[in-house]
Amino acid sequence: MQLLVLHGPNLNLLGRREPGLYGVSTLEAINAALTAQAAAQGVDLACFHSNHEGALVDRIHEAAGVCDGIVINAGAYTHTSIAIRDALLGVALPFVEVHLSNVHAREPFRHHSTLADRAVGVICGFGPASYSLGLDGLVAHLRAQEPA
Amino acid sequence: MQLLVLHGPNLNLLGRREPGLYGVSTLEAINAALTAQAAAQGVDLACFHSNHEGALVDRIHEAAGVCDGIVINAGAYTHTSIAIRDALLGVALPFVEVHLSNVHAREPFRHHSTLADRAVGVICGFGPASYSLGLDGLVAHLRAQEPA
Amino acid sequence: MQLLVLHGPNLNLLGRREPGLYGVSTLEAINAALTAQAAAQGVDLACFHSNHEGALVDRIHEAAGVCDGIVINAGAYTHTSIAIRDALLGVALPFVEVHLSNVHAREPFRHHSTLADRAVGVICGFGPASYSLGLDGLVAHLRAQEPA
Amino acid sequence: MQLLVLHGPNLNLLGRREPGLYGVSTLEAINAALTAQAAAQGVDLACFHSNHEGALVDRIHEAAGVCDGIVINAGAYTHTSIAIRDALLGVALPFVEVHLSNVHAREPFRHHSTLADRAVGVICGFGPASYSLGLDGLVAHLRAQEPA
Amino acid sequence: MQLLVLHGPNLNLLGRREPGLYGVSTLEAINAALTAQAAAQGVDLACFHSNHEGALVDRIHEAAGVCDGIVINAGAYTHTSIAIRDALLGVALPFVEVHLSNVHAREPFRHHSTLADRAVGVICGFGPASYSLGLDGLVAHLRAQEPA
Amino acid sequence: MQLLVLHGPNLNLLGRREPGLYGVSTLEAINAALTAQAAAQGVDLACFHSNHEGALVDRIHEAAGVCDGIVINAGAYTHTSIAIRDALLGVALPFVEVHLSNVHAREPFRHHSTLADRAVGVICGFGPASYSLGLDGLVAHLRAQEPA
Amino acid sequence: MQLLVLHGPNLNLLGRREPGLYGVSTLEAINAALTAQAAAQGVDLACFHSNHEGALVDRIHEAAGVCDGIVINAGAYTHTSIAIRDALLGVALPFVEVHLSNVHAREPFRHHSTLADRAVGVICGFGPASYSLGLDGLVAHLRAQEPA
Amino acid sequence: MQLLVLHGPNLNLLGRREPGLYGVSTLEAINAALTAQAAAQGVDLACFHSNHEGALVDRIHEAAGVCDGIVINAGAYTHTSIAIRDALLGVALPFVEVHLSNVHAREPFRHHSTLADRAVGVICGFGPASYSLGLDGLVAHLRAQEPA
Amino acid sequence: MQLLVLHGPNLNLLGRREPGLYGVSTLEAINAALTAQAAAQGVDLACFHSNHEGALVDRIHEAAGVCDGIVINAGAYTHTSIAIRDALLGVALPFVEVHLSNVHAREPFRHHSTLADRAVGVICGFGPASYSLGLDGLVAHLRAQEPA
Amino acid sequence: MQLLVLHGPNLNLLGRREPGLYGVSTLEAINAALTAQAAAQGVDLACFHSNHEGALVDRIHEAAGVCDGIVINAGAYTHTSIAIRDALLGVALPFVEVHLSNVHAREPFRHHSTLADRAVGVICGFGPASYSLGLDGLVAHLRAQEPA
Amino acid sequence: MQLLVLHGPNLNLLGRREPGLYGVSTLEAINAALTAQAAAQGVDLACFHSNHEGALVDRIHEAAGVCDGIVINAGAYTHTSIAIRDALLGVALPFVEVHLSNVHAREPFRHHSTLADRAVGVICGFGPASYSLGLDGLVAHLRAQEPA
Amino acid sequence: MQLLVLHGPNLNLLGRREPGLYGVSTLEAINAALTAQAAAQGVDLACFHSNHEGALVDRIHEAAGVCDGIVINAGAYTHTSIAIRDALLGVALPFVEVHLSNVHAREPFRHHSTLADRAVGVICGFGPASYSLGLDGLVAHLRAQEPA
Repeated sequence: MQLLVLHGPNLNLLGRREPGLYGVSTLEAINAALTAQAAAQGVDLACFHSNHEGALVDRIHEAAGVCDGIVINAGAYTHTSIAIRDALLGVALPFVEVHLSNVHAREPFRHHSTLADRAVGVICGFGPASYSLGLDGLVAHLRAQEPA
Repeated sequence: MQLLVLHGPNLNLLGRREPGLYGVSTLEAINAALTAQAAAQGVDLACFHSNHEGALVDRIHEAAGVCDGIVINAGAYTHTSIAIRDALLGVALPFVEVHLSNVHAREPFRHHSTLADRAVGVICGFGPASYSLGLDGLVAHLRAQEPA
Repeated sequence: MQLLVLHGPNLNLLGRREPGLYGVSTLEAINAALTAQAAAQGVDLACFHSNHEGALVDRIHEAAGVCDGIVINAGAYTHTSIAIRDALLGVALPFVEVHLSNVHAREPFRHHSTLADRAVGVICGFGPASYSLGLDGLVAHLRAQEPA
Repeated sequence: MQLLVLHGPNLNLLGRREPGLYGVSTLEAINAALTAQAAAQGVDLACFHSNHEGALVDRIHEAAGVCDGIVINAGAYTHTSIAIRDALLGVALPFVEVHLSNVHAREPFRHHSTLADRAVGVICGFGPASYSLGLDGLVAHLRAQEPA
Repeated sequence: MQLLVLHGPNLNLLGRREPGLYGVSTLEAINAALTAQAAAQGVDLACFHSNHEGALVDRIHEAAGVCDGIVINAGAYTHTSIAIRDALLGVALPFVEVHLSNVHAREPFRHHSTLADRAVGVICGFGPASYSLGLDGLVAHLRAQEPA
Repeated sequence: MQLLVLHGPNLNLLGRREPGLYGVSTLEAINAALTAQAAAQGVDLACFHSNHEGALVDRIHEAAGVCDGIVINAGAYTHTSIAIRDALLGVALPFVEVHLSNVHAREPFRHHSTLADRAVGVICGFGPASYSLGLDGLVAHLRAQEPA
Repeated sequence: MQLLVLHGPNLNLLGRREPGLYGVSTLEAINAALTAQAAAQGVDLACFHSNHEGALVDRIHEAAGVCDGIVINAGAYTHTSIAIRDALLGVALPFVEVHLSNVHAREPFRHHSTLADRAVGVICGFGPASYSLGLDGLVAHLRAQEPA
Repeated sequence: MQLLVLHGPNLNLLGRREPGLYGVSTLEAINAALTAQAAAQGVDLACFHSNHEGALVDRIHEAAGVCDGIVINAGAYTHTSIAIRDALLGVALPFVEVHLSNVHAREPFRHHSTLADRAVGVICGFGPASYSLGLDGLVAHLRAQEPA
Repeated sequence: MQLLVLHGPNLNLLGRREPGLYGVSTLEAINAALTAQAAAQGVDLACFHSNHEGALVDRIHEAAGVCDGIVINAGAYTHTSIAIRDALLGVALPFVEVHLSNVHAREPFRHHSTLADRAVGVICGFGPASYSLGLDGLVAHLRAQEPA
Repeated sequence: MQLLVLHGPNLNLLGRREPGLYGVSTLEAINAALTAQAAAQGVDLACFHSNHEGALVDRIHEAAGVCDGIVINAGAYTHTSIAIRDALLGVALPFVEVHLSNVHAREPFRHHSTLADRAVGVICGFGPASYSLGLDGLVAHLRAQEPA
Repeated sequence: MQLLVLHGPNLNLLGRREPGLYGVSTLEAINAALTAQAAAQGVDLACFHSNHEGALVDRIHEAAGVCDGIVINAGAYTHTSIAIRDALLGVALPFVEVHLSNVHAREPFRHHSTLADRAVGVICGFGPASYSLGLDGLVAHLRAQEPA
Repeated sequence: MQLLVLHGPNLNLLGRREPGLYGVSTLEAINAALTAQAAAQGVDLACFHSNHEGALVDRIHEAAGVCDGIVINAGAYTHTSIAIRDALLGVALPFVEVHLSNVHAREPFRHHSTLADRAVGVICGFGPASYSLGLDGLVAHLRAQEPA
């Protein structure tokens, strides 16, 4: 099983940016922990970050025919990007949407996601553990789809 | 650690009701699996279901001073009950909101939760695994709060 | 054929409450007339009233596998209860929504029903005759579904 | 007792148009059945159809001083015509609004009626039986108004 | 000077329809009084009534190149007809919008006019005198446009 | 018969301010013409202008028991002042609302009036003739109320 | 004079729940103080609390023909319950709506009450004194209605 | 192949009406050019204009079983008529919606069409060429549906 | 303790204006009764009325450093004045908002207050007793703030 | 060059009122600094403050034909006054809108200005420097308009 | 004549992505067909695709002074990008907006375009033929602008 | 002191693009003038332009720990980009938002900024002088924060 983790804009600031809100882990540490968690389940994991909407779209296209599913924290683009939604639907890969913070407790413009209605599931509010729970959830979902 | 799992209206129909949407597990099976998962982590779990909003409020009150946190699937009351929100805030216990289905993919009236902005985190769309991930997330959250 | 008639909150006040608006028949009289009307068509009728949303949900659950259809006047819960909607969908029984008064001629918050889009049909404004017409409509609907 | 049944735009297509939605009865068959049902109760029935809003207004005017009440399925004009509303109020005849389909289960623009708040009652969703129930409801309403 | 007075749907009921709201004058009496008032100012007046939106559009088209201005009470079409607006703009004749009743004191759907923003002026609430004031206003407006 | 004409904020600029929109007559000229028009009908007219909302309220209070009706062009306060509305209702005098320009053809915030639903009638768009027509309309209204 | 004080959901937590917001008095202390205040004015007072919407409806029904008026703090149901509104209107007893906190200073969903437009008066923001002022206001209102 | 071109209200004014907005071609010239364009592709074309909504509905009904598709410029009825939508759906013929002007650049009420979501395609802004492009688009669409 | 009672626009009409809505007491009588009530509690009371928004702002400014709190019935300015809100916040005095009538039972534009979210408490619907209850509430609030 | 600085309601409280929000400078100090800044650029400056909307309108009228431009901080009237907007447009003087605080960071009702769309420019958030920057901007704008 | 065809995000997936919705042609095939169609009319065509909003803006800038017009399918950016709108207006080139699918039949967020009100015309729903019709429409528009 | 000036999409067109709206200065000229203005105050200035949202986010990240503040004209991204907002908050640098044109006088979608509520201040409408005033305002703000 091959999975992709996508990080959207400003997530490269993790550990530096508003630690009271986003925690002290860096993106590198999160990626390393997720890779280990995946490996322990026999899953191969690729991680990618960009602040560019178009680069995220490009990366999703590259995953077609290669990956089995995507864990995505699209950051601010969660709330504004229809292009990323279309890319995810275009490659027809199951994906899980995650957020570090509880978006429902923040500004109203963060309450709506352009992706959520087409996701397998959505997880928010657990800090870096949101990624970890999302990875578990996606693996379980994919395993449940496999033929007996 | 003592936790409470709350199931709101119609969840007693699980396994019977719209299986294409909600899956084939019964509520008893879910409770048994969660209790085992909790025990494996040294957590004592109580489970409660009611179709009555007032009974859910009463049960939350009883948890004050007894439980350390709550995993709640408030079902239809998620979208209409301010009384349950007030009860959760009144007893000041951390809680995680879970849903079997991906509420963002359903009717618009299911997109808003009266609870979510005060939850530790929210998980939806993974079927019974939403409870399981929610339990993991809540335990991790509580352990992270413990003094060293 | 076994049918259920459900009466929601405050309908026990019928004959006492705002007679200019709701008429002078008591709930007992309405139930008796409906039972006679049903019997004349070879239909067995059960009637139930509660002011408790949860009790109405419970009663709908009990009808699963027992009744062939439901005539429901959910009263004020018509406009606020998603739990009753979910219960009706959960047991997958055809139902007819009725109201004594013409809800479209009253306060705006009475113009929306959480149930109507999933009902076989909706009838309002005829006083106690709304129940009677609803029963006729439901029986006709069920007979039309029967195999030849 | 003299009553009028009015059919609005496109109802002449009945039996041909979207039978999955509107059924297989033709308008002529519905009119014949209603006329028989009325006659059985000693009621004289006139039926009229037009695709023209102005022709429906004209026909309502002609009913003043001649008819005792109206059963109206205004079709698409239900949602857009204030002129028909004003005509009904202008002749001051009691009327019942009926629809073949359950309008609440269709496009949002069909959820609002310009007529409903001034009707005796509203019935929808029972197919041709909506007319039949509406006729019964109107006759009962008119008989209840008669002096003893 | 040649002017046209247009009466929209249901205005033929004047004198019969809701006299508490619309007064006791018939449309014929109003037309006669307006014709006399116009003649006294050297103005030739044509009057036209229809319950059909299309007939009003047709009549406006006929006024092009013949009339110098229009006094229009479009009745219910005031609030729904873009076709009449387009017809008035198409023939490029100045027009005054009038209403018998004070539309601002009635249902909210009567507060908006599709015509008003392109009218010379708007007058409502004075009963049949609204027509009379509107005629005076239109004549004064046209005389003010005339070359010295 | 004693009437009051009220002019609201900025109307003292008439003749100077945006003549393309408001015309070239000064407020003094308008008052003089209205006074003559009133006198010709045996009506005594008082005129008052203020840029102060409170001063307009005070002046309306003074009219109680002295005047028989009011012609008011409340200018910008038309759209924001509930105090002037309350003053007019408090003294219970019939009033006519007038505007020089066609408010429906201007900014959306000028489309709503806090006064219009309680006015006898409303006239706009005729320039200074709006006052003149409004005076005629108010006199006619008052004369129609007089006992025979 | 016989009055009823009703406390809605979560008010049993008073003294324990968010004391910074709701104060330190328990519900028992408030009831005792109100009973004494009533007795001093010759008024007999009953107090009732429930977390169940249906139980509050039932209790209001029981007051019909027994009580002269109601002081109600419906808590969270203030904002969601049409059933309680209907119950109060059904028994046709005058009632005063009270809140401990200033609801206008809290979340937007607490700004609307389903009850307020039918109350004698509304009082909020004074902590337990809101009940006391509400009781005074209700007694004064009832005494003013008594025949001389 | 037999096609129908429908022109709605005020399009008979073409060439006379607001030429800066609608161009200088007459409706007759447009029909002649379209008929020639169709003939060149072996398509038989009928053209119909009416200012009456009902007449357009009638004409659409007549096309059932005779025509293979419709090019419709419903003019002002584009924005208000559900009856025309129902007629098009009732006869189940593919249709293309066209407009002379770019409706998105005009008043907001012209931005919504009651027809567009059920059309094969929509074309606006090219003047008379909108019809021509729409005819090409419809023919191509129909030819693509034909069995090989 | 020194308190200020402020009366906004049109309250000088009390006793004359719409007595069915506002009662028969004059403003002078209300002021006299409040002054006596205050004196009985050892409180010095100043009363001020103006129809001018600016004059109310000025008067609030004068209270800074002199008064301990304000009871304000801002009348129509309750719904439109941000200037009075800013004045109250600027002088940082606790205030209680009162209304004679139940504003929730009147026009929608009276349901919102620009002041309420910053008030100690709000009281409406008790007629002149609203002032009296408000004075009691404010005195109790201030006494509860005093150091022991 | 002659300029006018206008200060709206509550700005006379500067230095006393909410210094954390508005700073510690008094209005007199701000006026003195602005006058010096203007003089250094050869500009004559007049300053005016009022809490009365009407007085601000009057003062704007007086500036016609005397001043070359206006710097206005309309305070709370920024958000509610159409009369001040009309006054500024009536005298046709260029004006710059300034605010001490960043209005976009405060309550939503402060986000809209009735003046901004007709201003040369808008400046907010710099404390007293907002006036200073606004004066510089206005002078630069006027100098750029001067003939070479 | 030199024209530019722009393809926005995800259009590189054509032929692979949701063929039921977007068809089986690849972008390369579409570009080749359009180039041939253009050449047949003596038009030189450049084609460009990017998933990056900024790259589309850059490419539009490069067209200034080189191209005579643009056919643009901005894909998802149609609904979110003001930058592309500003770029098109900045280079002041006429453009035609096209869409493969009928956007009016899809999710509501696809019903609004940031570009459409400034386009020459808009075409949607004809699959790859939308581009072809758009090219014809643009060429005809440009030829009509040429001096005779 | 080290500051950064950021220019968003299409600002590279300055001097070419819509000069009636944006003026005739090129971006290079503006940057040169700002650099000189900064140098005169002992401030080191960097300038950056991009049409790519992601590139602007990247550039803001680079400013962390290097710059003391930012003057940003985000162009069209002002109204759509949450990513730029998050970047500015992530690096926690004070920033001033500027616009060449008066955005309040343009299309409604330009009235809202995703950045403004977190800016030190906002300046618009002065053409290139908006940058110059913004630089002055930012320097003054930063100097006021410096320890004595």
